[in-house]
Amino acid sequence: MVNGIKPIASRSMAERVEASLREYFAKENFKPGDPLPTELELAAALGVSRNVVREALSRFKMLGIIETKKKTGMVISNPDIVGTFEKVLTPEIMDESTLQDLFELRLVLEMGIADLLFLRKTPADLDELDEIVAREVKDKHFRISNEIAFHGKLYEMTGNETMKRFQNLLLPVFGYVMKLENRKSVSGKVSHQDLVKILRKGTVKDFKDGMQAHLQPHFDRLQHQKSKP
Amino acid sequence: MVNGIKPIASRSMAERVEASLREYFAKENFKPGDPLPTELELAAALGVSRNVVREALSRFKMLGIIETKKKTGMVISNPDIVGTFEKVLTPEIMDESTLQDLFELRLVLEMGIADLLFLRKTPADLDELDEIVAREVKDKHFRISNEIAFHGKLYEMTGNETMKRFQNLLLPVFGYVMKLENRKSVSGKVSHQDLVKILRKGTVKDFKDGMQAHLQPHFDRLQHQKSKP
Repeated sequence: MVNGIKPIASRSMAERVEASLREYFAKENFKPGDPLPTELELAAALGVSRNVVREALSRFKMLGIIETKKKTGMVISNPDIVGTFEKVLTPEIMDESTLQDLFELRLVLEMGIADLLFLRKTPADLDELDEIVAREVKDKHFRISNEIAFHGKLYEMTGNETMKRFQNLLLPVFGYVMKLENRKSVSGKVSHQDLVKILRKGTVKDFKDGMQAHLQPHFDRLQHQKSKP
Repeated sequence: MVNGIKPIASRSMAERVEASLREYFAKENFKPGDPLPTELELAAALGVSRNVVREALSRFKMLGIIETKKKTGMVISNPDIVGTFEKVLTPEIMDESTLQDLFELRLVLEMGIADLLFLRKTPADLDELDEIVAREVKDKHFRISNEIAFHGKLYEMTGNETMKRFQNLLLPVFGYVMKLENRKSVSGKVSHQDLVKILRKGTVKDFKDGMQAHLQPHFDRLQHQKSKP
């Protein structure tokens, strides 16, 4: 299967019905809240069994593209993109190349959020970061939960709900990759505490440099391995 | 529905079977290639109808977590995370707040890829960027396709297949948001041509500053609107 294309003949009936319904939704310009025909009507229109239609509709329900309302029946809905991502993000059964890709994706996000942070940070956010760092200094045993608390708070500060949920999903991947590589707590020269200071008194550029130094051990490893596995 | 939680009683049978199968896959530590019990066996074990099991399995097939092999029957598979994302990324029916989130997500990725670019760029990549820029200067009418070609090539240069496919998916969102805002071709002070020069002769930091200047009009708009819609 290359980029989502596969021979027509090898598509299952559910896949074919799914594709037809996608075309139909787009052509009819359906918006969230719009009611859909019933299972029976769709089955008749497509000339397939009701079971196959139910199977295809079930896929759309899982994606949040369709929901069932008590009185109205099925309606088009605003899909839950992060929730769907979550359903498929199963580190245990993902190949190593994909895990590595996601690990790098998270590094890229960390490096890229500086501008949004400086656009939206509030004094209350900075106070909360101080508290997280204070806990961290006291409790050195909970390194991973401290990591999660600190970086999670940064994503929250971007005010971008999708990004925040997205990075939450990437956390287990991060942990999984580090476990695979049997890495101990490696930290860059710039600590969480330093980063908060920069957020308070530094510039966007200072913060970018700081985050770069903070993540340096990860970049060093990428440099070392040169090409991807 | 709050963060994927909903009352047990309101879950459909397909949802309940889906959840049970997820637990089962995790507990049995299934890996890609491992064969699964048949539909009938699963229906008997779960005490539900074969139709409901087929519906739940169909969901896993759509996510790429299960595939059907000609002789072996159903096996666990390496899920296609970007393909799944694609299935749910339907700008027409997504609410504005989510579209805005995805727009920002793409900005963050653009700002964050500098380190990977400098780690993996090759002379052939830079030559290809020169060609793209040359076409761009000649053909001013195809601004959007030039944009796609240039930024798409940057993602390709990261050597990260997941990120490349992910940004491809975000492209229509980018276009959609710009259309909603009725924006004309607004460019920052640093052009694509300038960015290629920096990639050839500058440092990672120069490139970060350059990309920041290139995307400045977008950040200005975010600054202007202050809080999210």
